[in-house]
Amino acid sequence: MPSPDDNARRIPAAAICAYMEDALRACALPDGDAKIVAGAMLDADLSGSDAHGIFRLAGYVKQLRAGNFNPRANIKVLERGPATALVDGDNGMGHLVMTYAANLAVELARASGVGWVGVRRSNHSGAGSTYASIPLAHGMVGIYSAVSASNFMAPWGGAEPLLGTNPIAVAIPAGKEAPVVLDIATSVASNGQIRTYANQGRPLPEGWVISREDGQPITDGNRLEEGMFVPVGTYKGSGLAIVLGLLGGPLNRAAFGRDVKDTNAPAERESNTGHFIVALDPARFVPLDTFKSEIDRHVHDLASSKKLPGVDEIRIPGQGRIARRADRENNGVPLAPGLIKQVDELAKTLGITPLSARS
Amino acid sequence: MPSPDDNARRIPAAAICAYMEDALRACALPDGDAKIVAGAMLDADLSGSDAHGIFRLAGYVKQLRAGNFNPRANIKVLERGPATALVDGDNGMGHLVMTYAANLAVELARASGVGWVGVRRSNHSGAGSTYASIPLAHGMVGIYSAVSASNFMAPWGGAEPLLGTNPIAVAIPAGKEAPVVLDIATSVASNGQIRTYANQGRPLPEGWVISREDGQPITDGNRLEEGMFVPVGTYKGSGLAIVLGLLGGPLNRAAFGRDVKDTNAPAERESNTGHFIVALDPARFVPLDTFKSEIDRHVHDLASSKKLPGVDEIRIPGQGRIARRADRENNGVPLAPGLIKQVDELAKTLGITPLSARS
Repeated sequence: MPSPDDNARRIPAAAICAYMEDALRACALPDGDAKIVAGAMLDADLSGSDAHGIFRLAGYVKQLRAGNFNPRANIKVLERGPATALVDGDNGMGHLVMTYAANLAVELARASGVGWVGVRRSNHSGAGSTYASIPLAHGMVGIYSAVSASNFMAPWGGAEPLLGTNPIAVAIPAGKEAPVVLDIATSVASNGQIRTYANQGRPLPEGWVISREDGQPITDGNRLEEGMFVPVGTYKGSGLAIVLGLLGGPLNRAAFGRDVKDTNAPAERESNTGHFIVALDPARFVPLDTFKSEIDRHVHDLASSKKLPGVDEIRIPGQGRIARRADRENNGVPLAPGLIKQVDELAKTLGITPLSARS
Repeated sequence: MPSPDDNARRIPAAAICAYMEDALRACALPDGDAKIVAGAMLDADLSGSDAHGIFRLAGYVKQLRAGNFNPRANIKVLERGPATALVDGDNGMGHLVMTYAANLAVELARASGVGWVGVRRSNHSGAGSTYASIPLAHGMVGIYSAVSASNFMAPWGGAEPLLGTNPIAVAIPAGKEAPVVLDIATSVASNGQIRTYANQGRPLPEGWVISREDGQPITDGNRLEEGMFVPVGTYKGSGLAIVLGLLGGPLNRAAFGRDVKDTNAPAERESNTGHFIVALDPARFVPLDTFKSEIDRHVHDLASSKKLPGVDEIRIPGQGRIARRADRENNGVPLAPGLIKQVDELAKTLGITPLSARS
């Protein structure tokens, strides 16, 4: 993700949220929908998924203006069973579609113990953790995955990027401890990390990107077009990207593999992005309070276990998020000057108050 | 996994299966149960999960004789909802418990679209792919995970092995192509791979095992006791092992973290191994034939895509299994002479016909 640099300016969360709402409304989203999308994007900014918050806004506006996203999507349930549903996102913004789908998964899980919702005709939805975390407020576990809207990885051994860095996010409720929230791409480095290094002119660490020609490392960010992202754990990450992609894509009649829209192709058709979200009710297995206190106990055991020399902190998924969110809610979200400049220029073209004039 | 060496002898599958059934019956398993366990173990031998077939028999016999596994387990459903169930394995053999749980997941998915079955008081069940594949015969997707019965990994940054190499297995039905079957440990190398290198006196590849003292690589197989297995993708594999473990363990009131029985401790209590298995009915999303033919198309697209120089075959999970199974069913399972010797000696102590006398 693009780490805020030393020159980052702290912008109040409320100002960022209001700015994003205004921008989305200016692109013809209904008021309620603009609020939901801005809220999901702010969730990424607050929790530290910096590549999935306001950083993405200009790209979304471009897609909305080009008519590639439907600003007035009519999200529909195409199929529904006692514990499953298939949702058609009507080519709306992914944040809106996935917020809908996650709440539907919770509803199914409340009735049946688990709910699996597949989604088709959606778009990029930001951070998977945002949707995996929706069931948490209902005392439930959330599991999210998606077929990335661009293919940057090859199946292991291959020279053609036919796979997305299809992510997996899992959120598990805790009691006193922070919820356990894992959100990882199936590539070694995420698209956001790689683009940030490239944009900053920093050499890419070896092992992130390899050449499509010969599989040799590419460390020059100017040569990204010749490269492919390396799957995490070689064939294991490739295998995970394949199975997650097949369950997020073809199962929902959404794009996968050769059907994924080429980012460089003229943007004349919808992405047909597929996702799935699962909600699981722990109370069907063990009383919720018992489950939460057991998660607390285990998180504490792991976090307080002996560290290797030179290690400050044992990495437990999601445990940094609470402190980061509290800091950013109180002190503002650190945004790079270049990003603030970009969104201020965007404001002019949209006829809305610039971000920097709001704080 | 222990690759069959050049001296491997081909033993007919039927002989291996009959031998394993006899051995399990000699350890007091009822006839029907012995058949199910032997069948699950043979599935591993046929599909190439060599570390999970007859290779494990001596270890299981030891546990049964020591009274650590219950040979006459009364498997019970403790909780059941429209799409979930919690199964108590009564400390029986994991193969039996997980075969039961996988079939129950299929039954739930048939009624509700998806079935999530959590399992407690089970034991090592062999290859996860065996159970993830049970829904395939019903035209369904299977997803399996477990809390490994031993802790060989630390949470990322830690120096204490508090995590298992908790595996994930996913099986997706196809039409003409082989089903897509992924089965991976969350460590770089599996326990079976590492032990095989160590047993053969071969140096371990760097990146498989690190020292508990200083995190430096351990390549000497005699120093495994000083080491910890490296999670795949560093913090990503550690994070996956944590979330899979929490869903397989505490959710089912099964062991995780500090509660996992130390392999070196006196074996006086049951392992309380936890697993979960999910069955998902694709027909709730798309007609099954359409789904299967789409999987075929995508598998073909990936497998036939351009290869990197020097690569013979693009790795698609499960695509080698069909050919391997056909070969082994026709020509026998290749077993190392040391393994045949071991099971022949075991036969004497059990009063059954040795394996080598059966073929």
